[in-house]
Amino acid sequence: MTATSDQPSARTQRTLISVDAMGGDQGPAIVVAGCSASALKNPDISFILHGPAETLEPLVAKRPELKGRCTIRDAQGVVTMDDKPSNVVRNGKGTSMWSAIESVRDNEASVAVSCGNTGALMALSMIRLKKLPGVNRPAIAVLYPSTNPQGFNVLLDVGADVRADADDLLRYALMGKSYARNGMDIDRPRIGLLNVGTEEHKGRTELKEAHELIRDAADDAGFEFVGFVEGGDISGDVADVIVTDGFTGNIAIKTGEGTATLIGNGLRQAFKNSIWSRAASLLAYTSLRRVSKRFDPRRVNGGVFLGLNGTVVKSHGAADATGVSSAIKLAARLAESEFTNRLAARVAAAKPTKETEE
Amino acid sequence: MTATSDQPSARTQRTLISVDAMGGDQGPAIVVAGCSASALKNPDISFILHGPAETLEPLVAKRPELKGRCTIRDAQGVVTMDDKPSNVVRNGKGTSMWSAIESVRDNEASVAVSCGNTGALMALSMIRLKKLPGVNRPAIAVLYPSTNPQGFNVLLDVGADVRADADDLLRYALMGKSYARNGMDIDRPRIGLLNVGTEEHKGRTELKEAHELIRDAADDAGFEFVGFVEGGDISGDVADVIVTDGFTGNIAIKTGEGTATLIGNGLRQAFKNSIWSRAASLLAYTSLRRVSKRFDPRRVNGGVFLGLNGTVVKSHGAADATGVSSAIKLAARLAESEFTNRLAARVAAAKPTKETEE
Repeated sequence: MTATSDQPSARTQRTLISVDAMGGDQGPAIVVAGCSASALKNPDISFILHGPAETLEPLVAKRPELKGRCTIRDAQGVVTMDDKPSNVVRNGKGTSMWSAIESVRDNEASVAVSCGNTGALMALSMIRLKKLPGVNRPAIAVLYPSTNPQGFNVLLDVGADVRADADDLLRYALMGKSYARNGMDIDRPRIGLLNVGTEEHKGRTELKEAHELIRDAADDAGFEFVGFVEGGDISGDVADVIVTDGFTGNIAIKTGEGTATLIGNGLRQAFKNSIWSRAASLLAYTSLRRVSKRFDPRRVNGGVFLGLNGTVVKSHGAADATGVSSAIKLAARLAESEFTNRLAARVAAAKPTKETEE
Repeated sequence: MTATSDQPSARTQRTLISVDAMGGDQGPAIVVAGCSASALKNPDISFILHGPAETLEPLVAKRPELKGRCTIRDAQGVVTMDDKPSNVVRNGKGTSMWSAIESVRDNEASVAVSCGNTGALMALSMIRLKKLPGVNRPAIAVLYPSTNPQGFNVLLDVGADVRADADDLLRYALMGKSYARNGMDIDRPRIGLLNVGTEEHKGRTELKEAHELIRDAADDAGFEFVGFVEGGDISGDVADVIVTDGFTGNIAIKTGEGTATLIGNGLRQAFKNSIWSRAASLLAYTSLRRVSKRFDPRRVNGGVFLGLNGTVVKSHGAADATGVSSAIKLAARLAESEFTNRLAARVAAAKPTKETEE
């Protein structure tokens, strides 16, 4: 919160979040419940809710805490999980997702939140919000549970693009640095570049190039470069931000999530094994809940699209009200810190490297 | 074990394993203890132990179960974790690692086991054992805990090479199929190709090419191709074998291990929280031990080098006696199933695809 402590004005007026109410696996009632939970916890947030008015109005009317804090913007179309991104870009006007992004494009809201189809959301965000000057490939950043004091590390890209060259990886470092600073209050984040070993001679050519570019940018950009890091460091404490291409990042987070689920299921089975273990699970209930909460993907729910003129937070498609509320909390935090403007300034300040590379 | 049931002769004679006693973080005493544990459990195994005779002789003398079942092959040099692979290839003659591989090259033993420097072990194995006909890039395969009935999936490559083209990925599929069949008794393994989504249009170009090659090879080679799989499927039940390049595979397993460690530490902390949770951990001791054993990297200790004239099992550098014993058990199983010969036949039977591709 230190990032906003010198800006009392940002606190006294309401933070407006643009929310796509449709497209999540759980339907709009869950999204409205998430808004409602956020409204109760944070009196500074208000909402523009996008979706079919006749569906949303009764849902909102049931929530007194949303009274006067929620504008419904009628949009009859819905982007489904099966819609192809290219098709949504061509024909998506009039959908709740399009409308939610439009509120950011029009500067009504500074951040949009959606539980919908990731590919379509990214494609629409790129087309409607446009890339920031200096950014070739936008990125999706997530918070991954870690042994660092802040409890999480920033990992990017986790799937905006399957490729990244050395220059893209440098931009990811700059964007990750802004995110760690504004999203987690880390003044001088430590940035690591993901590789198969920590020695400088290891890995692919573009990684060796990126190593040089990021190292040379560190001082001016206000981060510390810790060099190459490995897969185990994503949940470790040697770096606060882990930079990688979207292919590798996507597989890393899904492998991590799968492994966490496997262990969670193994534990649940174990506690059902005998009467002793059942008793144990009752005794340890509070402690186990704390661990489960710490690794609950709903709590860190929110991939953030970085590198666009406006910030978009992608919530899990399967998110429940807690997950949606958590994504809104993150969106509000980024809105309050004027994150997009700060990130734009940071990326623009970095020298272009394309010319010198080729 | 069905693979060897029609070969009683392989069971009546001893399976000879070549073991590099040096180079592990824990020193040769742990390696000898691992051999000893294996000898007690499996009366069919005997060993050639490579390392300085004056160091190994007293260690072996202390273990009556190794009497008459362990030949010591004097090798004074030791490859350390810091030695560069290229340097070991040039100057490594006379080291225990070189000597251990030489026993396989000379057909004394069919499988070698080492806890040493992975890069050096791979480089030496490639130079001394040579690649199988039809193999351009060898691979390292690991067993990853999964929800499948067999408890594990085969994942390869996890780091033999940072690149793999479509043809390499096809060979990995064939090698993975042989490994799943001989190492886990799966008659017709299901093979998945790791990608960022399951739709056929997703991912990088070489993956789309590999998708076609592997699909077309499936029937002849006796496996089922399930198409693209995602990171979460590495620990899932949609495939028995996951094929990927060594860069992605390496980052995936290290991310998974890191996440498992993070959760394990979180649980240990949780059980120390209060007197109730301490009591709970006593009550649930057996159940928790079972879970911890299931996800214990020492139990699945053994990356297997595939695609060479001879099989090499790489045990974790930090392995204790349980880990070493587990790597030896895997080596013995592969030796008994005449794994190398079967794999060579399988890979050679696949049509070359290089010409048709270019």
